[in-house]
Amino acid sequence: MTRIGFLIFPGMLQLDCTGAYGVLAAGPDVTIHLVWKDLSPIRTSDKLLMVPDTAIADCPQLDVVVVPGGGGVVHLMNDAVVLEFLRHQSGKASWITSVCTGALVLGAAGLLDGYNATTHWLSLDLLPLFGANPVRQRVVRDRNRITGAGVTSGIDMALTLAGALWSDPVAEQIQLNMEYDPKPPYHAGNPETAPEEIVATMRNHSAARQAERRVAAVAAAKRLRGNEGL
Amino acid sequence: MTRIGFLIFPGMLQLDCTGAYGVLAAGPDVTIHLVWKDLSPIRTSDKLLMVPDTAIADCPQLDVVVVPGGGGVVHLMNDAVVLEFLRHQSGKASWITSVCTGALVLGAAGLLDGYNATTHWLSLDLLPLFGANPVRQRVVRDRNRITGAGVTSGIDMALTLAGALWSDPVAEQIQLNMEYDPKPPYHAGNPETAPEEIVATMRNHSAARQAERRVAAVAAAKRLRGNEGL
Repeated sequence: MTRIGFLIFPGMLQLDCTGAYGVLAAGPDVTIHLVWKDLSPIRTSDKLLMVPDTAIADCPQLDVVVVPGGGGVVHLMNDAVVLEFLRHQSGKASWITSVCTGALVLGAAGLLDGYNATTHWLSLDLLPLFGANPVRQRVVRDRNRITGAGVTSGIDMALTLAGALWSDPVAEQIQLNMEYDPKPPYHAGNPETAPEEIVATMRNHSAARQAERRVAAVAAAKRLRGNEGL
Repeated sequence: MTRIGFLIFPGMLQLDCTGAYGVLAAGPDVTIHLVWKDLSPIRTSDKLLMVPDTAIADCPQLDVVVVPGGGGVVHLMNDAVVLEFLRHQSGKASWITSVCTGALVLGAAGLLDGYNATTHWLSLDLLPLFGANPVRQRVVRDRNRITGAGVTSGIDMALTLAGALWSDPVAEQIQLNMEYDPKPPYHAGNPETAPEEIVATMRNHSAARQAERRVAAVAAAKRLRGNEGL
């Protein structure tokens, strides 16, 4: 049996979680935990209600930890309970993974120090604060860490993980069942191919949020590493 | 304001809903309804708890109807309350859409008669029972119907819809924010490119379920069209 835990939290972006969930829940003999501090429903940043089934204090040892991202990450980076939970789980978990800005939480827990990693393109420059080497790639695997880029990359990350956890044919079976043969109707999926004005608009719209993220990341990095290199 | 309703139901496949939700919830001035018969949480076929916020009886007129698919579709195809709800909404909704086997429910409600449409590759041969013309394509748009193929095609379907509802730049902005620049690590996303043995395994594994779906679809088609052509 493979025990997979998703950390879910207020302000998570739901698809960061549900994309990877869709892949991993289709695996053989899987138990999935939706883990949060308590069992009260949480509201995602896009207003979906999700219901945790496992409290952090009661969570058994996981084989796989998945940390999704979203606006709420700004709080998690300096949340002692969450960071301690991740550090504790990482001691014996086989795989430590993230989707989107979930990587910043892994980083804040000290779990990406010395690792290649990725995250949402807008936050990639924050990874070095945690000693991680940012790689502009959709999925980055380094030893037992697998990090995905923005939101939908959780599907690719989880298929990579499914291949590693089970086998290539199992991952292919899952891909075929979910008909993951993407044909985006636009070419705006990354800042390198998107129209320049679309990228500029998004940088503008997210400037305040990114500044807030940087403040939280710097605070987390200070606690983690002292003032070295900051 | 754009009022978008997802029909959610026991046995829905969560990613059929959450993929499209992730796109549409990011649109400007959107209100999303998760609609079911009552407000009790439903359990998806992959065991996620989802919480309806709007009962069918109380649902306002929607601008967009989205019907996801999954195992539970076999019951919806002959569920008078659900079919009447869809027929009623379709009178004034701007867009009637589906993801995966959700198309079979639209078909059973008589809403695809004379339309080009698609659905999960394993169920494509059921569409003609409802007078629809099956098209093996990831997203099919015919007048105000937009249908997506299997599961993850909901993301492509919703981006197509976002372009139609709002504008190309809005859809591109959403795509960039969710970094939808897919790079599947395998080539098994459709039965044409997947390894033959993977396709054969899946056909075998799903044979009983597909037979059950056919029985339900034939019953629905009979009620809808009489015995003509069956």
